[in-house]
Amino acid sequence: MTPDLPRRLVAEGLGSLILVATVVGSGIMGARLSGGNDALALLANAIATGAMLVVLITIFGPLSGAHFNPVVTAIMAARRTLPARDMVPYIIAQIAGAIAGAMLANLMFDLPTVSIATTLRSGPAVWLSEAVATFILIGCILGGLRHAPASVPVLVGLTITAAYWFTASTSFANPAVTIARTFSDTFAGISPASVCPFIAAQACGGAMGALFWRWLFATPPQDGLQPCPIAPR
Amino acid sequence: MTPDLPRRLVAEGLGSLILVATVVGSGIMGARLSGGNDALALLANAIATGAMLVVLITIFGPLSGAHFNPVVTAIMAARRTLPARDMVPYIIAQIAGAIAGAMLANLMFDLPTVSIATTLRSGPAVWLSEAVATFILIGCILGGLRHAPASVPVLVGLTITAAYWFTASTSFANPAVTIARTFSDTFAGISPASVCPFIAAQACGGAMGALFWRWLFATPPQDGLQPCPIAPR
Amino acid sequence: MTPDLPRRLVAEGLGSLILVATVVGSGIMGARLSGGNDALALLANAIATGAMLVVLITIFGPLSGAHFNPVVTAIMAARRTLPARDMVPYIIAQIAGAIAGAMLANLMFDLPTVSIATTLRSGPAVWLSEAVATFILIGCILGGLRHAPASVPVLVGLTITAAYWFTASTSFANPAVTIARTFSDTFAGISPASVCPFIAAQACGGAMGALFWRWLFATPPQDGLQPCPIAPR
Amino acid sequence: MTPDLPRRLVAEGLGSLILVATVVGSGIMGARLSGGNDALALLANAIATGAMLVVLITIFGPLSGAHFNPVVTAIMAARRTLPARDMVPYIIAQIAGAIAGAMLANLMFDLPTVSIATTLRSGPAVWLSEAVATFILIGCILGGLRHAPASVPVLVGLTITAAYWFTASTSFANPAVTIARTFSDTFAGISPASVCPFIAAQACGGAMGALFWRWLFATPPQDGLQPCPIAPR
Repeated sequence: MTPDLPRRLVAEGLGSLILVATVVGSGIMGARLSGGNDALALLANAIATGAMLVVLITIFGPLSGAHFNPVVTAIMAARRTLPARDMVPYIIAQIAGAIAGAMLANLMFDLPTVSIATTLRSGPAVWLSEAVATFILIGCILGGLRHAPASVPVLVGLTITAAYWFTASTSFANPAVTIARTFSDTFAGISPASVCPFIAAQACGGAMGALFWRWLFATPPQDGLQPCPIAPR
Repeated sequence: MTPDLPRRLVAEGLGSLILVATVVGSGIMGARLSGGNDALALLANAIATGAMLVVLITIFGPLSGAHFNPVVTAIMAARRTLPARDMVPYIIAQIAGAIAGAMLANLMFDLPTVSIATTLRSGPAVWLSEAVATFILIGCILGGLRHAPASVPVLVGLTITAAYWFTASTSFANPAVTIARTFSDTFAGISPASVCPFIAAQACGGAMGALFWRWLFATPPQDGLQPCPIAPR
Repeated sequence: MTPDLPRRLVAEGLGSLILVATVVGSGIMGARLSGGNDALALLANAIATGAMLVVLITIFGPLSGAHFNPVVTAIMAARRTLPARDMVPYIIAQIAGAIAGAMLANLMFDLPTVSIATTLRSGPAVWLSEAVATFILIGCILGGLRHAPASVPVLVGLTITAAYWFTASTSFANPAVTIARTFSDTFAGISPASVCPFIAAQACGGAMGALFWRWLFATPPQDGLQPCPIAPR
Repeated sequence: MTPDLPRRLVAEGLGSLILVATVVGSGIMGARLSGGNDALALLANAIATGAMLVVLITIFGPLSGAHFNPVVTAIMAARRTLPARDMVPYIIAQIAGAIAGAMLANLMFDLPTVSIATTLRSGPAVWLSEAVATFILIGCILGGLRHAPASVPVLVGLTITAAYWFTASTSFANPAVTIARTFSDTFAGISPASVCPFIAAQACGGAMGALFWRWLFATPPQDGLQPCPIAPR
């Protein structure tokens, strides 16, 4: 019994909203309290985002799949896990929800509802970071669905927490979130001028991931070695 | 076999006591050790509170439901998960236990048993934060009970850890805890003058959440997409 | 099939050794790197100790019960979960292993194998903290065994991580660990002059816990409300 | 159905690549943002590495066993869990992947693709640390496989997070990772002059661990006491 499309779109939109409110809000709080120590601000950002992703994917996953990410939605549509006709509505819901989340974070911290971000995030190293982060995120999702589906929420949360730190871009890895983060000129913001190459890099990483991981995870798992999902199947 | 009411009230009261002792105590310790760096104090506060919530909900959940929160109790009574006649005793036990927890934290840190907090937490941004935090907390609980009941303790712990950071109020989201935190003029304190609007905002967020999430989670989960609870059912 | 006593004593001794090496070693590293910011040192201490407890209880639990703590061993003997004649050998193994762990940590950090700690930890507030911490630790263990036995390692790790922060004593809650921490004059050390009241407080908290929690958890769980263990039974 | 060897080698190589990119990349980011506070840099390093290990072992474990570590591969070959003829190809894939991971991290942070590390890590205390860390890592893996196989990814992640802090060497515990970390003269780097004794210490710790833990975990678990895996079997 699939939930009706409106309910699934609400799940995608609201999940994206809460996700971006968490990213932007925890960035504001972290920057305010850390007295200029960006490592502490990023630590707060990474812990809050990872924690909330686990919650959101757990509670919305059985409704809509809990993509919150146009790259994931496109891959799921290509794999026919999502009906093709639902792809565009999903992506619109994600972008609209994500923008609303940035605005909500601004309001919760008593800032103007919208302020266009001025932080430039640019250059080949940062674009490489986004492609790598998206490639690994897709591997985490497809590998998790293949070998430990009940653990996917935890795996995604842990991947993003780690990727905040091991990439130079702090791993946006999500076009909807990237667009939304232009609407808050705060710690997590990104200038509109930096958005297009970010999304292009994410699309490249996602496309390469979709092809590569599909090949890698095509074989049945090897029963003779370690069966190591976090939770039993 | 439901435990008798006294035992359930002890569970609610003692759980609320330990929860508030953790919130207030870790705030005191964090503030003492961090040398004025509030980001570190809040990090300690958030990690300790989230960790203890997982423990308390796991060990008290099967006894009393482990609400520790009048908003949750009112919603459970409205949903007939809790007998209506138990609602008021539950709330009294929660408030009494929470206040005792603040006093215990004061004593453990060699402070006067009671000191009325002077930290004003006020203004529309902070009230919006409380409403949003409570709305999301209710979604986490109802969505978790619907899709991954065994994971509810972890989901609540993660939600609160994240919400410490992404809201301007540090997410009290609980009237009993709010009242209790007036009894310790320390890092986690709140002036009595700020309490009423906090509770009103929490009640609004909770009521909107109860209606909205009930609608959203009414459909059976969608088997064709990702079934993603943290732990299998 | 119970493992033979020598193997169980090795498990208790080695587990206590690794636990104390983690506590003392992470304290040394935290203090060295944090440049005098004790909040960071305690954060490292709390995260490392909690993480290692999860591992040690998981891998040694099925062998010896993974007590690593004379208070826990005494309670298990009183509940006849442990044969009475094994109690004293268990406690000797725990104390010997714990002391060896402190010495190992000293050696790993290029310090004298033994240096008697000079940090005084004294006064009613600290003793109250130890009694409260031990009382809660016993509740976590007995409640976990009652309602979610597979989650006990995680519950204990989370309890200790939180208790580092919400008690003024940083929660030793363990006589064997307390004795061992006199053997390293570093961040986690405790002066021998402070040991006896610590152990007395731990014994009080443990005894009160054993009685209280036994009463509280005596009823079968309430099926009609939330069944909320972290992992399914 | 075992996956074909090329696919398993890709899993070992790519897993080692992502692991080292995480270790080196998060070290660079941590050092850049922390303004010279090495405790914060190591905290970021430890959290990112532990989180990514959980993900990598979960998604690659069912393919190749997710060793990413020549010491683990040698032990698995000695236990006949891995066919002996696969040992050398596995180790080559691990070393090649790990080196590529260090280079990827350099590129993501806009540094020269290769810069030979100059950080000397030497002396008996550091070597003891490596032997202890490897010994404990092997215990975590063998004990986890014995008592809670579904929890092995989490156990390894937690062990390494803790071991970053409780050893003076920050626990490399892996010859492939040790070699790779010579290729980045950054926070996580190690001078080539320090590599041989590191690997010797890891080999000693691993060999002692293989013998000792095999003996300890030979008995069936003790059903009468606490059965405490994180997740049920």
